[in-house]
Order: sequence, then structure tokens, then C-alpha cells
Amino acid sequence: MGKQAIYVGLDVGGTTMKAAAVDDGGKPLSAPAVMDTHPERGQDAGLQTMCETIRRAFAAAQLDLKDIAAIGVATPGLMDIKGGLILDPPNLKPWKNVPVRDFIQKTFNKPTVFQNDANAAAYGEFWVGSGREAKSMVLFTLGTGVGGGIIIDDVIIEGEHSHGGELGHVRIVEPDRGRRCGCGARGCIEAYASATNVVRRARDDMAAYRGETQLRQFFTANNEEFTAKDVFDLAIGGDELAMKVIDDTAYYLALGACAVIGAVDPEMIVFGGGMAVEDWFRDKIDAYVRRFGLPFPVKTVKVKFATLGSDAGFIGAAGCARLAMKTK
Amino acid sequence: MGKQAIYVGLDVGGTTMKAAAVDDGGKPLSAPAVMDTHPERGQDAGLQTMCETIRRAFAAAQLDLKDIAAIGVATPGLMDIKGGLILDPPNLKPWKNVPVRDFIQKTFNKPTVFQNDANAAAYGEFWVGSGREAKSMVLFTLGTGVGGGIIIDDVIIEGEHSHGGELGHVRIVEPDRGRRCGCGARGCIEAYASATNVVRRARDDMAAYRGETQLRQFFTANNEEFTAKDVFDLAIGGDELAMKVIDDTAYYLALGACAVIGAVDPEMIVFGGGMAVEDWFRDKIDAYVRRFGLPFPVKTVKVKFATLGSDAGFIGAAGCARLAMKTK
Repeated sequence: MGKQAIYVGLDVGGTTMKAAAVDDGGKPLSAPAVMDTHPERGQDAGLQTMCETIRRAFAAAQLDLKDIAAIGVATPGLMDIKGGLILDPPNLKPWKNVPVRDFIQKTFNKPTVFQNDANAAAYGEFWVGSGREAKSMVLFTLGTGVGGGIIIDDVIIEGEHSHGGELGHVRIVEPDRGRRCGCGARGCIEAYASATNVVRRARDDMAAYRGETQLRQFFTANNEEFTAKDVFDLAIGGDELAMKVIDDTAYYLALGACAVIGAVDPEMIVFGGGMAVEDWFRDKIDAYVRRFGLPFPVKTVKVKFATLGSDAGFIGAAGCARLAMKTK
Repeated sequence: MGKQAIYVGLDVGGTTMKAAAVDDGGKPLSAPAVMDTHPERGQDAGLQTMCETIRRAFAAAQLDLKDIAAIGVATPGLMDIKGGLILDPPNLKPWKNVPVRDFIQKTFNKPTVFQNDANAAAYGEFWVGSGREAKSMVLFTLGTGVGGGIIIDDVIIEGEHSHGGELGHVRIVEPDRGRRCGCGARGCIEAYASATNVVRRARDDMAAYRGETQLRQFFTANNEEFTAKDVFDLAIGGDELAMKVIDDTAYYLALGACAVIGAVDPEMIVFGGGMAVEDWFRDKIDAYVRRFGLPFPVKTVKVKFATLGSDAGFIGAAGCARLAMKTK
């Protein structure tokens, strides 16, 4: 036979889901099939959409079911990774206790692997993205929230309660003075460094700022539509307060990275998501990591930006399927 | 043959080293052989003392070299775990770049495994101590410093730079306001919750305290000899300021535990060392973990005290030797 094994990875998000066939070297065989998730239509419809997205991925790569070695599915938490269940994810309301893995496994009669979406993205970057040369890697994904995943020697740190690598909620400021996070706690990384919270911090900093800043007119003109990208753009344009907000963001992310360095001492820390674009921002994070991290590890720990973009989830899900087949 | 395999574990500390033969179920076959480390006599003398301590462990258990399946050696960092080297540990000055693993392996002609001492202690607790029922466990050791180890599914998180589980230097207070740690950074767990720093915080709190406290006379009478145990005793006796110092200690330890929960989400958190004695202290840590940790994991995460005492190191070192033989 000698034929290279092919895997399908499905990445389920609150808005859309994406799937593609991926070869044994981590290369997608087509652009991903994309469908709307419509969680409000209920979980049975959701399971059907997952299967349809997977079928479209077969078709896009001109493959039949028989060509597929295994399927990997990634979803947001809360979940039970080992049980193959979506539990009660805030992004997929009103779904509850959805037996994703078994449903897909039965539908296609293929080995199916279930994983947290941030863990899958981390595995994707580890497998064929910016971490492909690393033996251990930690990913922070910067979006509406801050997600994370930890991979050590091809092992994904899933956690006893499927919360391994829940890095957005590692605390960097003490609870009595930290910013309030969406999770209810205070001082989480996410409360400082998610795209949403970069904008919030910009607004708060502006309120206390005496100098000139373009943030003021931006917030007044389009309060609702102002994004982290706008803060970055103003910083690039030389706005001093915007620069401070971005610099603080790098500092907070570095504190999060330092906590993870103390816990697992990875070879590489990777930041992904819409804010992980500008080299000078990476350099700022890097400098703070070296200033505030454990002296011995930070001599050589690598700080990088992700390279797979929004493909990391389905590529990583396919990679998890591949990993499970190899280690069986 | 059916005979149970026997391993020797050696735990090298800055003051003494201890070794014992341990059976396949984790039971020491004698009291440990103990010798003074005398690091100041140099590393060649140190290596000889390690070998002599191992020989005394054979003798104490009435065993010959041929009865031993493998040897495990645990030392304090800095080290290169994979390379089998002691690098430059502050507790073993003036030793530098000592090839411990290879020396012991050649001397006894037995498979020899090298590990960080806190990781070994964590593995000991995981194997046959308070974590013996757990699939994943994190240990904080509270002594002059704060050490740590993370075990997940029989895998020790060693780290890329042999700093995995360096939990004493996970930051719980921001660098611009945290207490100065022995490592040079600010805000590390160790700067708050090591035995030494419990005493220092007691003294600082006393200086700012207006009320009555027995701490004052204790510090005046024997400033140098006052220990964390004295603070605990005063707290047990009802001294309000001492109670606050201990309560704060529980709070700081819990913040450290919460950071590790966010990173690796273990089934169990274990605290060991001289301060991990009183049930009410464990209960305080436990309550703070549940208050400040990730809601889903802290519903069921277990918070325990270690049960192996100072035997954890050599038992764990023997366990690491056993693990390496089993997974070969």
C-alpha cells in the first residue's frame, strides 16, 4: 500500500465550524469546508452539521470515506475530553452533555478523537506550525478570550477536569486588586490581554489620562466598534497612550508566560490570534519574559507568534487523530 | 524468577544525603543510610560519599549489589536532568558540572536514573504517598525554600531546562510590589510561603501592628532562632497577629496552587515539608483554593498534605529508577 494516511480535522466554534482533510505531514488537502454552527438550533442539529462539514471536507479533497484513517474533533469547553462529551460551553448555548465523539465515530465508523479547541490549536502549531522544531510548547491564543494549550513531548496536557492549559485564567494580579474577568474571578490574564480587554483597558487608561490621545476621539466616534486592532494602529501611528496600552499588554502576557515557565518550563512559548501580528509586539513580550521569568530557562526559551492562523484548530484536530493512531 | 525487583534511591541534600533499598511496592527495606554531604570538600569527595551511602543502603537491607535492579539519584538544581549532571546548585557549592549519573552507573554497573530532588519527592508521594490514588499530582515542598514537582500519568514534568515544577518561583504578586525572593525576582511564592519567609512576614507584620502580640517578645528574645513553627504555635495559642500571618500563608499557597490548576489541572495538590502538619492549616489552604481557583476544577480537586515526610526523596528516586526500567 505505502499510501500516506489521511486524517480529517473538525474545529467547532461558536459561530462557524471548519473541517479539512490533512495528510500525514500536516498539510491540508483543500481549503477547509466551513458551515455556520447555529448553536441556537440545538445540539442534534449541531451534530448533523458537524457530520455534514466533515463530508464536505471529504468532497473538497476529492476523497471517499474509505480514504480516511481517523477523525479529530475539537470543540470549546466546558467538556469532558476523555468521555468525548461537550458539557456546557458558554459559546455553544444551549447545548448540554453532547456525546460528540461517539456520534461521529458511529456515523462514519472511523476512529474518532475528541479534544479541546485550544489544545488542538496548540497541537497544530506544535506539529507543523511555529513549534514544529520544539520538543515542548505552550500556546496562548489571543481573541475575545485568552485560550491556551500545553504540549510536552507529543503529550497534550488535558488535565483531570479537561482544563489543562486553561491559561487565560492563570492569575497575574492578586484577586483583591485585579480586573474582573468574564469567568467571575479577578486578575486572570484574560481580564488584561484578550482583544476585548485591551480595548477596555484603553478606555480606562484614557479616562485617567491628562495628555493628548487619539483614543478619545475614536472612543467617542465609534465606541462599540473600536477594536484591539485600532489600539495597535494608533500605537503604530505614535499615539503615546495607545503605545502604553500595548506595552502593558505585552507585560501582562509575559507575566502569564513566566507563570507557565515556572510550572512546566517549555522550550517555546507561542502567541496566536488576531493580536499576534507585529514583530515589535513579539519583541516586547520577549523582553518582558526575559526580564521577569526564571533566569535559567529564559536564557534560551523561545517566544514566537503562531504561523497557522485560524487553520491551527482543524490541522491540530487532524494531528490529534494521527497521534492517537500512532500511539495505539 | 518471580522475585520482586529492588531499587536503591539516593537523595542528596546540601547537609546530608540519604539512601535506602526500596521494594517494587515502594516500601523501604531498612531505615535510610545517612551521611553528611560536606559539599565544601569538593565534588570528587561528594561522588565518593554518594557511592558509600548507596553501599550502606545495601548493607542496611542485607543486600548485595546483584540484588539491585537499578539506582535512582535525586539532587537539588541547577542541573541537567537528561544529561545526568549537577550544574551549579546553590546548596552544593562549590560543585560544578558533576556527572553524577554516569559516575554512579559506572561504579555499580547498574542502570542509573537522575532526577531533581523535588521532582523525586513528588514522584514518591505520587507512587506510594498521599497521591497514590491520583492520576496526576502536584507537590509543593515547604522548607527553607519552596520546591515543587508535577506528575501527570506517571510522567514527571522535567522541563526543557530541568526547571519543570519550579513552583517556588511562580509569581503570585506583581513584580512592582511583590516581596523580594532569594532568586532575585519579586513576588515568587517562595518569597511569601517558605518557612524562612513566614518568619520574615511575621516580623514585618509585627512592625506595622498596633495591638498586643507575643511575636514581639519572641522576636526580641531570640530573633535568630525564631522559626515558622513558633509562628504556628503562637497561632494555635490564639495570638491574633500570628493567626493572620498563618492565614496569609495559606492564602499565598492557594494562589500558587490556583496558578498550577490553570496550567495543568491536576487531580491533587499536595503540600509537604515542616509546615504541612496541622489539619486546620490544610483546611485554610483548601478553602482559599476553592475560592480563588478555576470553578470547574476546584469542585473536585483534592488538597492534601504529604505522608512520606523526608523519606519522599529517596523513595521517589527509587521509584524513578523503577519507572525507567518499566518503560524501557
